[in-house]
Amino acid sequence: MRLVDGIPTDSILADDRGLNYGDGLFETIRFIHGYAPLWKRHMQRLVEGCARLYLPVPDLDILLDEATRVCAGCSDAVVRVTLTRGVGERGYRPPLHPDCIRIVTAFQTPLVPTSVYVAGVSMHRCQMRLAEQPLLAGIKHLCRLEQVLARTEWSDPAVAEGLLCDHSGRVISATCANLFAVIGGTLATPTLVRCGIAGVARAEVLGALPQCQVRDITLESCLEASELFLTSSVRGILPVRSVADKVYAPGSYARSMQAHWQDLGFPMEHIKV
Amino acid sequence: MRLVDGIPTDSILADDRGLNYGDGLFETIRFIHGYAPLWKRHMQRLVEGCARLYLPVPDLDILLDEATRVCAGCSDAVVRVTLTRGVGERGYRPPLHPDCIRIVTAFQTPLVPTSVYVAGVSMHRCQMRLAEQPLLAGIKHLCRLEQVLARTEWSDPAVAEGLLCDHSGRVISATCANLFAVIGGTLATPTLVRCGIAGVARAEVLGALPQCQVRDITLESCLEASELFLTSSVRGILPVRSVADKVYAPGSYARSMQAHWQDLGFPMEHIKV
Repeated sequence: MRLVDGIPTDSILADDRGLNYGDGLFETIRFIHGYAPLWKRHMQRLVEGCARLYLPVPDLDILLDEATRVCAGCSDAVVRVTLTRGVGERGYRPPLHPDCIRIVTAFQTPLVPTSVYVAGVSMHRCQMRLAEQPLLAGIKHLCRLEQVLARTEWSDPAVAEGLLCDHSGRVISATCANLFAVIGGTLATPTLVRCGIAGVARAEVLGALPQCQVRDITLESCLEASELFLTSSVRGILPVRSVADKVYAPGSYARSMQAHWQDLGFPMEHIKV
Repeated sequence: MRLVDGIPTDSILADDRGLNYGDGLFETIRFIHGYAPLWKRHMQRLVEGCARLYLPVPDLDILLDEATRVCAGCSDAVVRVTLTRGVGERGYRPPLHPDCIRIVTAFQTPLVPTSVYVAGVSMHRCQMRLAEQPLLAGIKHLCRLEQVLARTEWSDPAVAEGLLCDHSGRVISATCANLFAVIGGTLATPTLVRCGIAGVARAEVLGALPQCQVRDITLESCLEASELFLTSSVRGILPVRSVADKVYAPGSYARSMQAHWQDLGFPMEHIKV
């Protein structure tokens, strides 16, 4: 089911700035039996994105109501909330008083095989380097061609993710998840002030593990990590099993965060954390 | 009037990848009495963009037919052609066999005061720096948040354009036009292999003035140029009158290219080139 500004429809106006210029934001939020354990963190990021793009903040109670409506009756759903600057005159200049639109859609939560949670994901090392744009770093805006191009680099269904670096060779994230690494015994995750998306699951992990360092991580040190894991608001905590031919064993941080995810209310019984 | 895949409608599906990820391309093409003098160059860039984004090339005869239909009866119109990867599963991975959509819309050509063609445009010096992404440089893709943010930097209606640099401080373009500068007596335009859009009007100028150098241009050398002008497929040749407090006089290259534009069939009689 889909709601556009609260009205059930599958279409939007073709002159929406979200389509014409990528002028908007989105969130993909997992709902378990109508409840989203990370809702507040999603809304924090959305509000931050609005401030960065000079978009008016939508009414968050209405958003929650619409999100709950579109996933009603689903035991496990992903709700995508898209917020655009709406229709405006042709040209990059944003309207002074934009008539933003919100699109709220429910999808089936993608099935992640139990073996992935247990043994981890295999990752491709992406050739594509993320561009550095501090003004857009961290927020989940609609301009995602870099991720689309990165995702074209492999087709092996056994490879679930790609490792992304920036132009200076720093590790930033996976193609659609954030990354944590245990380097020299210390947990760390890349700083996302130049590029990358500051994931909601990443924020939850940082809240649970305040000792984690947020810093630059070189590709070399990442590949020498004793443990790697990915975080995704849709898929949860994914240990990394390999990056290209480098192999890792699932580690204690990933297992502890998988248990935390279960405590939050995400169904993880099948992996017996 | 607007056609989506040849059918008159104002709406598209809300799960189009063009909206969800900026996954597509566009062209804005000026038609004079149903004829687009720069049509071939627009199609060259669109085809190049398709190759870069792994999009199937649309039937260009059908596109021309649709563009001609939407601007029928207009003496002077801008036709926007948007090509997206269409609907696909949720997730960045592009479908193997995308069902691309094309959106063809006619707009009134924006009125540019004669004084602008005669005396030139005033430009803001943008604070925003363009990110460097060689994989997306040159093509006219849908991810345009940088230009949107740049365009929020000023609201003075007397300032028509902004000067954009990349993160390394090289001059790249205006916010929605390309830039040419006469530096030390030599005509030059920025290389666009790291960022920027390779404009169709820029290509036409390069074809007419093969002595023009395509190279890196520092902000300092640009500000010391003896002549600056902008090129836009919609607005034509615009001399630059000022960049912030630096003032320029319209020069002979801009005048000669304005005459060339008139020869191409664009109405410029009012400025008596």
